[in-house]
Amino acid sequence: MRREVSDTFRKSYPQLSVSPRLLLGPGPSNAHPRVLQALGMRQVGHLDPQFLEIMNRNQDLIRYVWQTDNRMCIPVSGTGSAAMEATFANLIEPGDKVLIGVMGYFGMRMVDMAERYGAEVVTIRKPWGESFSFEEISEAVISHKPVILGLVHAETSTGARQPLEGVGDLCRDNDTLLLVDTVTSMGGVPLFIDDWKIDAAYAGSQKCLSCPPGISPLTFGSRALDKINGRSGKVKNWYLDMSLLSSYWGKERSYHHTAPINMNYGFYEAMRLVVEEGLRERWERHQRNADLLVSELGKIGLEPYVKDEIRLPSLITVAVPEGVDAKKVTAALLNDYNIEIGNGLGELAGKVWRIGLMGFNSRPENVALVTTAMEKILNQSS
Amino acid sequence: MRREVSDTFRKSYPQLSVSPRLLLGPGPSNAHPRVLQALGMRQVGHLDPQFLEIMNRNQDLIRYVWQTDNRMCIPVSGTGSAAMEATFANLIEPGDKVLIGVMGYFGMRMVDMAERYGAEVVTIRKPWGESFSFEEISEAVISHKPVILGLVHAETSTGARQPLEGVGDLCRDNDTLLLVDTVTSMGGVPLFIDDWKIDAAYAGSQKCLSCPPGISPLTFGSRALDKINGRSGKVKNWYLDMSLLSSYWGKERSYHHTAPINMNYGFYEAMRLVVEEGLRERWERHQRNADLLVSELGKIGLEPYVKDEIRLPSLITVAVPEGVDAKKVTAALLNDYNIEIGNGLGELAGKVWRIGLMGFNSRPENVALVTTAMEKILNQSS
Repeated sequence: MRREVSDTFRKSYPQLSVSPRLLLGPGPSNAHPRVLQALGMRQVGHLDPQFLEIMNRNQDLIRYVWQTDNRMCIPVSGTGSAAMEATFANLIEPGDKVLIGVMGYFGMRMVDMAERYGAEVVTIRKPWGESFSFEEISEAVISHKPVILGLVHAETSTGARQPLEGVGDLCRDNDTLLLVDTVTSMGGVPLFIDDWKIDAAYAGSQKCLSCPPGISPLTFGSRALDKINGRSGKVKNWYLDMSLLSSYWGKERSYHHTAPINMNYGFYEAMRLVVEEGLRERWERHQRNADLLVSELGKIGLEPYVKDEIRLPSLITVAVPEGVDAKKVTAALLNDYNIEIGNGLGELAGKVWRIGLMGFNSRPENVALVTTAMEKILNQSS
Repeated sequence: MRREVSDTFRKSYPQLSVSPRLLLGPGPSNAHPRVLQALGMRQVGHLDPQFLEIMNRNQDLIRYVWQTDNRMCIPVSGTGSAAMEATFANLIEPGDKVLIGVMGYFGMRMVDMAERYGAEVVTIRKPWGESFSFEEISEAVISHKPVILGLVHAETSTGARQPLEGVGDLCRDNDTLLLVDTVTSMGGVPLFIDDWKIDAAYAGSQKCLSCPPGISPLTFGSRALDKINGRSGKVKNWYLDMSLLSSYWGKERSYHHTAPINMNYGFYEAMRLVVEEGLRERWERHQRNADLLVSELGKIGLEPYVKDEIRLPSLITVAVPEGVDAKKVTAALLNDYNIEIGNGLGELAGKVWRIGLMGFNSRPENVALVTTAMEKILNQSS
C-alpha cells in the first residue's frame, strides 16, 4: 500500500538570512571569521585518522588555554551546559555532600544539577554582584567537609569574578574536590587550572574563545579521576559518562557517539587563534578593553555594577540609572544599531545591563560603538 | 604577582586541511554543499527574534520530515546519542518495565541507557541482520505489558529495517508507549510517526538529512507527554529535561542553554533541501540507488547480507566473501580512493561491510565509483 505523504508542513521556507548583529551580550559572542570559514570545511568521518589527529590537537589546545597538563581534557559534544552536567554526573555519587557557592544564576544551576544526581547539597550565598572572600569559603569547607566544592569563576549573570587563589590548597587539606565553572573566563581572564589546583572544570566555546556554541571544554585532574574510577555504580548519564568518553578520546578510540565534526573544525581554528595571539596577551587585551569601556561609560554617566577588584574583563555589568527602562534601551540597541547586549537576570533584572567584550569582540571599536549608541538612546529617551 | 604562562602546549598547529573523503559508511554522510555554506553564516544571539523564527521553522521542518503534527518536535543540542538519551531520561521513572527489541548494537545501547535511568529492562533478541515479526513483538508486549517498548527502525549496525505497521495499535491496546530509533531512516526511508502511532522518536542529522553531526531531531507525542508531565520526580538529567526544554522551545522562550546557532543554520538548510525535493521523491531516490548498488555489486560477485524485504535503502550491509580480509579492503578504499565505508560491528565484525547511501550521497555516480573501486581492490588482493 502506497501511503500518502502529508504536505501540511511542506511550506515555503525562505533562504537563511540574518541581520549583521554585533553580539556584545553575555554570549554567544561573534565567532572570528576564520572560525566561521573552518566550520564549512568538507567532512571526514568521525573515526578517520585525519579526524583523530584533529581531536588530539584540540586536546592539547585545551591544555594550553587552561594551563594544565591534565590527560583528561576534551571538548564535550554539546553546549557549555552539557559540559557542566558532565562534571556533576561523573563526580557525584548519591549521598555525596556538595558545597556550592551561589552568587548568581549559574551557582543556582549547579545546585539543581547536583541534586538531580543525588547529592546532599549545602550552599553559601552572596548578593548578586559580589563574590566570596577566602575566609568565607574556608569556614564553610572546614565546617561542612564536602566531597565537592563548586564555585563559579566568572558569574555570567552578574559580571563578578570569584578569586580562587588558595582555594585549591584548602580543598586538598579537607579532602574536597574543587569544581570550577570557567564558562565566561576561559581564554579571556587569567586562569591556571594546575597552579590553582582545580580538580574539574568546564567552559563554553561561545564566550572568550569566539567559536559558535555547540562544543565545550571539560577537564578532570587526577584526584577527580580517582573518584570517578572508584565509583560503585555506573554514571547515571550515558552520553556524558567519562568512562565511555575516555575510551573514545583515549588510545583505544572506541566508538561512543559521533563527534560533531564541523564544530571540532571551528573549535580548532578558534583555539589556534588563541595560540597565535598568546594567552597572556589575550588576557591583557580583554582587561584593556574592559577598562576602556568603563572609562567611556563614565563619560556618559554610567557606572559599573561590580567593584574593581572582582569585575570581570569579559562581561561588564552596568548599573541602570534611576528612571530608565532597561529593556527599552536593549531593544533600541538591537533594533536601531544591530547591537545585542544583555538584560539583568534574577536579582538584577531591570537593575543592570550586561555588556560582553569577549574574544574577537574585545576591541576598541566595539567599545566606541556601544558607548556612542547607548549615549544617543539615553539622550533620546530622557 | 604576575604568574608565568606555560608554553608547554603552545605548539605549531597547522592550518586545517583534510582529504576530500566520500563518506559512504554508516554515517556521517557528506553534508550538502549548501549546508556547509549555511554553517558559516554570521551569528545572531540565541534569544534574538531572528533566531527564534529559525527555531520555529526547524520545528515545522521536523514535523514535515517525520510526518507528524506533534507540538513537541525539537532539534536537541547534541548528537543523535543525546536525543536518544533524552527519550529514555524523560520517559523512564525508576522501576518502569521497558521492553527492548535487540537486533544489533543500537538495541543494546537502548538497554544500557534504560538501565541507567532505573528501568526494569526485558529484551527480545534476533540474530544481527534480521528483524522481528509482528507476532514476535505482539507476544512479548502482551506477556510483559511494558510501560515502554523500544525498537530500532533502522539498525545502523546491521542494515536491517524493523517493520512497524500495526505495532502502534498493539502498544495502545496494552498501555505501552512506543519509542523508536529513526537515526538512519529519517528522511531516507518511509516513516510516518503519526500514522504508525509512534509516541517518541529520535534521529541524527548526519545520516539521510546530510547535515553534519551535532544537532538531533526529537519528538514526543501526547501520550508520552502525559507520562512526562505525570512524573513524581525531576528528570535525572538537567540538559535533556523536557520540562525545561519545552519552556525554551515553547511560547515562553525561557532561557535554558545556549542553542548551537550555526548547527541550527545548517540543519535548517538541510531540511529545506528535503522540502524542495519532496519526502516521497527522496525516499524513492534512496530505494532506487540502493537497488542499483545491490545490482552492481552482484556483477562483481558480492551479495547483500540482509534479505530484500527488510533491507534498508540507506545502509546496505554486504557479505564479505570467504578468504577476504574485510579491514584491508576498507583501508584500501580510504587510502587509495578517499572512500569511507564501514566495517562490521559486534556479531558482524569481519563478516560484512556497511555501505551508506544517505541523503546527498545517495547518487548513481557514487554507486558506480564504490563498486568499481571495490572490484579493483578485490582483484588486486586475490
